[in-house]
Amino acid sequence: MKKIRIAVLGAGGLGKACLDVVKKKKEAKVVAICDSAGYLYSEKGIGSEDLRKFKPSKDSIGEIIKLKDKYDGIFVALPNLPNEFIPSVVKRFTKRGYNGVYTCALKRTSAIKLMMKSDAALKKNRSVYIAGCGATPGLLSAAAVLAAQSFVEIEDVNIWWGVGISNWDTYRATIREDIAHLPGYTVNRAKRMRDSEIERLLNRTDGKLELREMEHADDILLKRVGVVDSLRKVSVGGIMDTRHAKKPVSTTMTLTGTTFEGKRSSHKFILGDETSMAANVIGPALGYLKRALWLKEHKIYGMFGSTEFMPMILK
Amino acid sequence: MKKIRIAVLGAGGLGKACLDVVKKKKEAKVVAICDSAGYLYSEKGIGSEDLRKFKPSKDSIGEIIKLKDKYDGIFVALPNLPNEFIPSVVKRFTKRGYNGVYTCALKRTSAIKLMMKSDAALKKNRSVYIAGCGATPGLLSAAAVLAAQSFVEIEDVNIWWGVGISNWDTYRATIREDIAHLPGYTVNRAKRMRDSEIERLLNRTDGKLELREMEHADDILLKRVGVVDSLRKVSVGGIMDTRHAKKPVSTTMTLTGTTFEGKRSSHKFILGDETSMAANVIGPALGYLKRALWLKEHKIYGMFGSTEFMPMILK
Repeated sequence: MKKIRIAVLGAGGLGKACLDVVKKKKEAKVVAICDSAGYLYSEKGIGSEDLRKFKPSKDSIGEIIKLKDKYDGIFVALPNLPNEFIPSVVKRFTKRGYNGVYTCALKRTSAIKLMMKSDAALKKNRSVYIAGCGATPGLLSAAAVLAAQSFVEIEDVNIWWGVGISNWDTYRATIREDIAHLPGYTVNRAKRMRDSEIERLLNRTDGKLELREMEHADDILLKRVGVVDSLRKVSVGGIMDTRHAKKPVSTTMTLTGTTFEGKRSSHKFILGDETSMAANVIGPALGYLKRALWLKEHKIYGMFGSTEFMPMILK
Repeated sequence: MKKIRIAVLGAGGLGKACLDVVKKKKEAKVVAICDSAGYLYSEKGIGSEDLRKFKPSKDSIGEIIKLKDKYDGIFVALPNLPNEFIPSVVKRFTKRGYNGVYTCALKRTSAIKLMMKSDAALKKNRSVYIAGCGATPGLLSAAAVLAAQSFVEIEDVNIWWGVGISNWDTYRATIREDIAHLPGYTVNRAKRMRDSEIERLLNRTDGKLELREMEHADDILLKRVGVVDSLRKVSVGGIMDTRHAKKPVSTTMTLTGTTFEGKRSSHKFILGDETSMAANVIGPALGYLKRALWLKEHKIYGMFGSTEFMPMILK
C-alpha cells in the first residue's frame, strides 16, 4: 500500500502534534514540515524527534514548494497569522503548479472568507482545499450539520469549549489566536505581545481565559450549507485554562431547533474531557485530508468548507 | 427552482411522517407513495391528508415503477419485511431502467448486507443507493464517524436509544421490527403476530420493550469505513415505551477510544428528548437523499452506507 505523503506547514504545537498522530497511522507519513525559520524533508517520514534537524531557510515555504511532487496533501497548521497569509501561500503553491490537496485548521471567519476566494485558482489546478478542519470549525460544526437533520427550523448553534493545557508556551500561537478574540485585542496586537506580557495577562485571571462571541468561521461554514440562515444564530466561546491539563468545562456543541411536529429540542455533541485540543484538531484535519484526496480522485475540485463533507477515517 | 420529486415506498407511520416533513420543505415534494394495498401519484405534491385517495392495486410497486420518469429519488420506508424484499424491489426498478437515487431506513445488518450486493446493478444504471439513513443506523452511526476522528484506537461504539410513542399502533411495522429483536422472536414471527398478541406482550411489560445486542447495521456500516475493525465493537440497544410519548431514556451514541497521547475517553452525541423517532429518521433520510442526488450529479454511482457521507441540508 502506498502511504499518503503529507507536508505540514507550521512546526508549533499543532505541527508537532500532527507528527505524533501520523506516527500512529499506517496509511500516511509526514514527509515535509516547515516553520518561519526552516524546513525538513524526509521521504521515510518525519517524527517529532527529527525536528532538531531543521535546515535553516529564509524562505522555507519556497523550499516546500520546490518539493511539490514529493507529497500528496498539505496540512496548514498555522494559527495566529494575518488573514491574507494563508491565501497568499496557496497562491504561491498554485502558481508553481502544485495540484494536490490542502486542509487547514484556520478558525477566524474573516480568514476563511478570504480563503474562499481561491476557488477558481484551485479548480484550474485540479486541487482541493477543505477549510476549517480542526475542532471548531471542523469536528463540532460538522456535528451541527448532523444534528440539524432532525429539525425543520434551526434556532441556534452554540459551541462552548473547554481547553486545559498545563503549559501555555507549548501552544504559543494558539493562545495568541485566542487572546486576539478578547475585548480590546486584535490578531496583530496578540501576535506582537511578548511572552512576559502574555504571562502578566494570564496572571490576572489565574491562568484562565474566558472568550465569548468569538469570530469563528463555524458561522459562515454552517450558513454555506444551509444549517442557519443568519450568522447571528451561531455562537462560539469557551474557557481556556493555561495552567491545568484538566478542562475547565466539557466542550459541547448544542443545536436547538423545532421538529416537524412543532417540538422544540436540542441535540448535543460532547467531547470527552480527557481528549486534548491537539487530538480534536489534528484527527479531523487528517480525516478531512483523506476526504480531500477522495474528492480529487473523483475529479471534484475547488474550495470547500468542512461542513460540506464527512471526514474519512485515516487508518 | 425545480423541486426534488420524491417517491415514498411505504405508507405506514414513517411514510406518513415523511409526507408531513416534506410539506415543510421548499426544495422538495412527494409526488408518489404506495403501500401493499395501493398507490397515489400527484405532480403537485402529496400531503398526509391525501392518503385516503389511494388507488387500490395488486402490484402497487409496479405502478410506481411505471411512473419512473416522474420522480428523482425514492425513499424506502418499509420496516419489518423479509431481508430479500428491498433488494428484490430495487432489482425491479433497475430492470426497468430507473436511474434515479434511493435512500432507506433499513436497520437490520442482514438486510443491508444483502442490499450491498446490488452495487453492480446500480452502477450499470447510473443510480445511487445510500443504505441505513434513519436514526440508527444513520444519524447516530454518522455521529460515530465524526467522534472517531479524535482517537487513534477505537474501543467501542455504544448506541442506546429511548423511544416513547403514546399509541403503539401508529407504528405497527416499526414495533414489530423491534419485537423481532427480542429473545425467541424472529422477523417472520413478529410480522405474523396479531395486534391482540402484541397488546398481550406489551401488557406483560407495562408497555415497555427493552432491547439489547440488536442486529442493527451500524456495525457493518462502521466497519466498512474503518471506525471499528470488528463488528463486536458496536452495540445497539434501547428502551421503547409504547404508552407514553416521553422517552424512557435519552438516545445517546457513545464512542470510547484512546487518543494519540494514550488518553482513554468518550465522545457523546445525545438527541434531545423532545425529538420523536419520526423526526430523527425522516430528517436524515431526506438529507441523505439530497446527498445521493449530489453523488449522481458528480457521476459517482453505486451502493453506499450512510457512514460514508455527510447528509446534506434539505431546505
